[in-house]
Amino acid sequence: MNTVSEKIIARHLVSGEMKKGAPITIRIDQTLTQDATGTMAYLQLESIGIDRVKTELSVSYVDHNTLQSGFENADDHQYLQSVANRYGIIFSRPGNGICHQVHLERFARPGKTLLGSDSHTPTAGGMGALAIGAGGLDVAAAMAGRPFALTMPEIIGIRLSGKLQHGVAAKDIILKVLQLLSVKGGVGKIIEYFGDGVLTLSVPQRATITNMGAELGATTSIFPSDERTLEFLKKQQREDEFEEIKADQDASYDQIIELNLDELEPMIALPHSPDNVVTVASVAGRPIQQVAIGSCTNSSYLDLCTVANIVRNKTIAPNVSCSLSPGSKQVLSMLAENNKLTDIIKSGIRLLESTCGPCIGMGQSPASNAWSLRTFNRNFYGRSGTLSASVALVSCETAIASAITGVITDPRTMDYEPALDLPYYTIDDRSLIQPQCDPNAEIIRGPNIKALPKNEALPDHISKKVMIKVGDNITTDDIMPAGAKVLPYRSNIEKISEFCFMNQKAAFHDDCIKEHGGFIIAGSNYGQGSSREHAALAPMYLGIKAVIAKSFARIHQANLYNFGILPCLFKNEADYDMIDEMDELEFKNLHTIQGDTTLVVMNKTKGRSFMVYLPCTAQQAEFLLKGGLLNTLKD
Amino acid sequence: MNTVSEKIIARHLVSGEMKKGAPITIRIDQTLTQDATGTMAYLQLESIGIDRVKTELSVSYVDHNTLQSGFENADDHQYLQSVANRYGIIFSRPGNGICHQVHLERFARPGKTLLGSDSHTPTAGGMGALAIGAGGLDVAAAMAGRPFALTMPEIIGIRLSGKLQHGVAAKDIILKVLQLLSVKGGVGKIIEYFGDGVLTLSVPQRATITNMGAELGATTSIFPSDERTLEFLKKQQREDEFEEIKADQDASYDQIIELNLDELEPMIALPHSPDNVVTVASVAGRPIQQVAIGSCTNSSYLDLCTVANIVRNKTIAPNVSCSLSPGSKQVLSMLAENNKLTDIIKSGIRLLESTCGPCIGMGQSPASNAWSLRTFNRNFYGRSGTLSASVALVSCETAIASAITGVITDPRTMDYEPALDLPYYTIDDRSLIQPQCDPNAEIIRGPNIKALPKNEALPDHISKKVMIKVGDNITTDDIMPAGAKVLPYRSNIEKISEFCFMNQKAAFHDDCIKEHGGFIIAGSNYGQGSSREHAALAPMYLGIKAVIAKSFARIHQANLYNFGILPCLFKNEADYDMIDEMDELEFKNLHTIQGDTTLVVMNKTKGRSFMVYLPCTAQQAEFLLKGGLLNTLKD
Repeated sequence: MNTVSEKIIARHLVSGEMKKGAPITIRIDQTLTQDATGTMAYLQLESIGIDRVKTELSVSYVDHNTLQSGFENADDHQYLQSVANRYGIIFSRPGNGICHQVHLERFARPGKTLLGSDSHTPTAGGMGALAIGAGGLDVAAAMAGRPFALTMPEIIGIRLSGKLQHGVAAKDIILKVLQLLSVKGGVGKIIEYFGDGVLTLSVPQRATITNMGAELGATTSIFPSDERTLEFLKKQQREDEFEEIKADQDASYDQIIELNLDELEPMIALPHSPDNVVTVASVAGRPIQQVAIGSCTNSSYLDLCTVANIVRNKTIAPNVSCSLSPGSKQVLSMLAENNKLTDIIKSGIRLLESTCGPCIGMGQSPASNAWSLRTFNRNFYGRSGTLSASVALVSCETAIASAITGVITDPRTMDYEPALDLPYYTIDDRSLIQPQCDPNAEIIRGPNIKALPKNEALPDHISKKVMIKVGDNITTDDIMPAGAKVLPYRSNIEKISEFCFMNQKAAFHDDCIKEHGGFIIAGSNYGQGSSREHAALAPMYLGIKAVIAKSFARIHQANLYNFGILPCLFKNEADYDMIDEMDELEFKNLHTIQGDTTLVVMNKTKGRSFMVYLPCTAQQAEFLLKGGLLNTLKD
Repeated sequence: MNTVSEKIIARHLVSGEMKKGAPITIRIDQTLTQDATGTMAYLQLESIGIDRVKTELSVSYVDHNTLQSGFENADDHQYLQSVANRYGIIFSRPGNGICHQVHLERFARPGKTLLGSDSHTPTAGGMGALAIGAGGLDVAAAMAGRPFALTMPEIIGIRLSGKLQHGVAAKDIILKVLQLLSVKGGVGKIIEYFGDGVLTLSVPQRATITNMGAELGATTSIFPSDERTLEFLKKQQREDEFEEIKADQDASYDQIIELNLDELEPMIALPHSPDNVVTVASVAGRPIQQVAIGSCTNSSYLDLCTVANIVRNKTIAPNVSCSLSPGSKQVLSMLAENNKLTDIIKSGIRLLESTCGPCIGMGQSPASNAWSLRTFNRNFYGRSGTLSASVALVSCETAIASAITGVITDPRTMDYEPALDLPYYTIDDRSLIQPQCDPNAEIIRGPNIKALPKNEALPDHISKKVMIKVGDNITTDDIMPAGAKVLPYRSNIEKISEFCFMNQKAAFHDDCIKEHGGFIIAGSNYGQGSSREHAALAPMYLGIKAVIAKSFARIHQANLYNFGILPCLFKNEADYDMIDEMDELEFKNLHTIQGDTTLVVMNKTKGRSFMVYLPCTAQQAEFLLKGGLLNTLKD
């Protein structure tokens, strides 16, 4: 009577009771990092001081910071490679592919737990793994053998029936789910797929769905491991890693959503939120200027083969710039070997490196005021690097159909050959470098790789000003922007903190320096999106002591505890309206925090007090009092 | 009794006498621009005010600014495409390839003149075209039908005998010539190749040699048009464009250099100058951290096929990052179709877009203190984006051999199958967009595309300070850096001028603003390298009125006239040592300039005067007095 999720959690439970909402800890089998979050995670791993990682498998990928517009990125790559070699971590070379795509191909295993310092780690849920995104510090702790703490999630079951029709893609399933549940709908929940429709989906299609489940705010998303999983593992020459894991017939879900794939049509997430979803048909005809294909959501062989089949003997519209970033060297090799790549190249598509690329704002910023259709997972304001651009999220089918016509186009109106999966895949692991694990191996540190900043222990009494007040659904991209200009400083907190909230309040950094930090006031779902702990680390560096919000996104809330910033909830949401930027707030008796706590906050500027609730476990209380997880590990 | 160069010049002569050192003007058949110099060239073309270009063929390429880390690049691409459409210029889409490679493949013709706003325009000399690099304004004037003015060059004949041996490449020929002649050796000269060895070289090999002839400071380099030229044109389905053009048996050269290819060995240009050339064998064994393959010098099908053959079943050394940028979509398609691309991908090589990429500092900056081997044409200090890096220039053979071993490696020590040319090439011109030439077609201007700054007419009397004093061989990269951080501002002179001389004197921009401009003092070969007119435009914008140097590079000197800056030569080079930065200099009676002029300059700070020589034609005198060529066109 268990779901797939419960079966895997039960096997890995270290402490706590599997009661919805209760704190539990689980053993972590595998970890992954990428370079934008990884440098910080490995600085943290180094400071923990172990000899080698204690996981079954840890992989360090380089896929984000690959443009290299200065020495910083290449220095980071050398650092990551040398740390991986030292501590027993496989290093995936720059250009080998996007972490989630490569991990799915070569490492993800049914029934295993995977913790990744990237919010799209649930991609491996398409393989039947329990794959969770977390801050880099949590991943560092997992590599050091520490169980991962989470709240036992509720389980939403999504029953799939029927099968996808011509022109409709797996991407449309998750866009539909986002339309139904919103970017807050998955918070504290696992999204588990079941029903007859599951068998109609290949592992990469399932991975598209679990990948973008991150946009629901879910803890993770997962599919069963079944004959389709075995089929994929066989093609990857990993059939010995197969294990069947299905939900029991009588498994109970906290909520069930029915989705009939026969009736699904192509969907599109309009600017500037992944849940701003309508049908493609309803906006068809709108002119576009850019199309970008790729990302960890949509860059499998079948996805890009579909693109090749649709574009064969057709040409990208003259006024559209269309790029394509293959998900991995495996995908790129297979496209080349099967003559799909030449159809892509000749059509006018710009072939980019096998990396995250434009998805993380690493190049291909659209023109001013452009509409850009992307097969990615996020269309947050400004993430493309062009503030005036309108970014919409679609399937590969909709993207390439629209690139050909120059306007948003329903791919059901196009005739094309369905993409066929290959009988076997091209396996070549030479870009995955095995570690030597030599304790004397040199670790290479360029001048941009700065020492880890530490927080001070929590004062008992704090009286400081509100440095910024923001609204609902603030993303970690808002807090700590990415993109080609900012990402190179991911290993340099002092420098990167200059960009904190740059699109919300240009003076945020300078005000924090002048006022020696203070507080952040926020609406609901604060910190959604990317797992980047820099959205906690940079505010910590700037002296932010508490965030008072209506609600938090999971990973960011965990990051706040990890770095000793109080994540407080308004007891009464109406109090949000009574606070202005630069009001002075006072917290008292903070040293009494031991677990869930209600605190009275005095607004000295307005002369009124209000109540906030600080949810926390005993462990989180310790993090807060000592100024962060890292300060507890080194006792 | 004529050389190839003389035959083509004679056919195109508009005015002047073909006497070495005399001013002549020639008719221009074809022009090309790239995006980094093109936006300014087309702003200038617009300001000239014609209906459509008057050349036989003009092509606008996008190959430099392709990373797009902000809206600026994509806006430039839209501007370029819309101007091309308006004025009758073919537009080569971003990703279609590097201008010189694509032009060689699809447009360059024996016997034609080509003027390009890129210093490596002589690439087409490999086809027997007279191809000259120039500032954007000269190219704009050529598009408007104006003959191109130059000094009738001397002709250096390089007699090739024998044939290249295993592991030795066309690149080694030009590196050898650079060793012999230096980066100043070609100033005022055409380098013309002849002799039995010529027939052993294919057109792309010849193009590698004429391309990098730019580093000699030569006006251009050229090969005859012969049966190998016909063979190449046939494969490009352009045999109707063939014409045989060979030097007469008794042609006379101003100097002859003998080069026996049988005896040539692999060469390398060490940091930081293309003429700092030694044999690869003499530095073999030095560890390297990066290899970058591609650029307009070395990215033909045969070049990259050689790379594929050498790397087949081998792996890039773990500590080396190796990238490859194919020269064009044609090259990339053929590599994919002939299964060469998979050998490249699987070896660990990072496949980048078909653009200039790392050659222009557009990404792939090496790590701190890294050694980087590149198949490019320039290794000027800082051009890679990493000031502490050591960049060396080599052939594709040396580059990939070294990438495999991790140390500088003589490719003659490696066994590999020679690359075979294909019996036919893949032709697909869909990424070359034909113009509509509609006078009402909209021209799209993003907010970063600023109005063209104009110079004022030359004052009769100038008393200002020396803003900077620099040494010998200052490049246009030193004056106006490129790279991913600066290139986006090529259409915005106010903004880009902030980066002027940034690696020589950080305060240059601010000092110029404070002092309302002044003068530049330089050693010999001032302004070598790239044709970028921004190296004249930005100083003009900052109020620079004269550059006093020991000698000038050709294109930059022309750019100075074009923008109304006096390019003065020290009469007595020893006077160079008697001037310090911030000395106040005084020029008088400038309105008397009508042609070659000797001027007395008073150094008011030092209380001594010295003499300078201003070489100029009557036309150049007019440019100087009116504040630039553009001010004369609009009379």
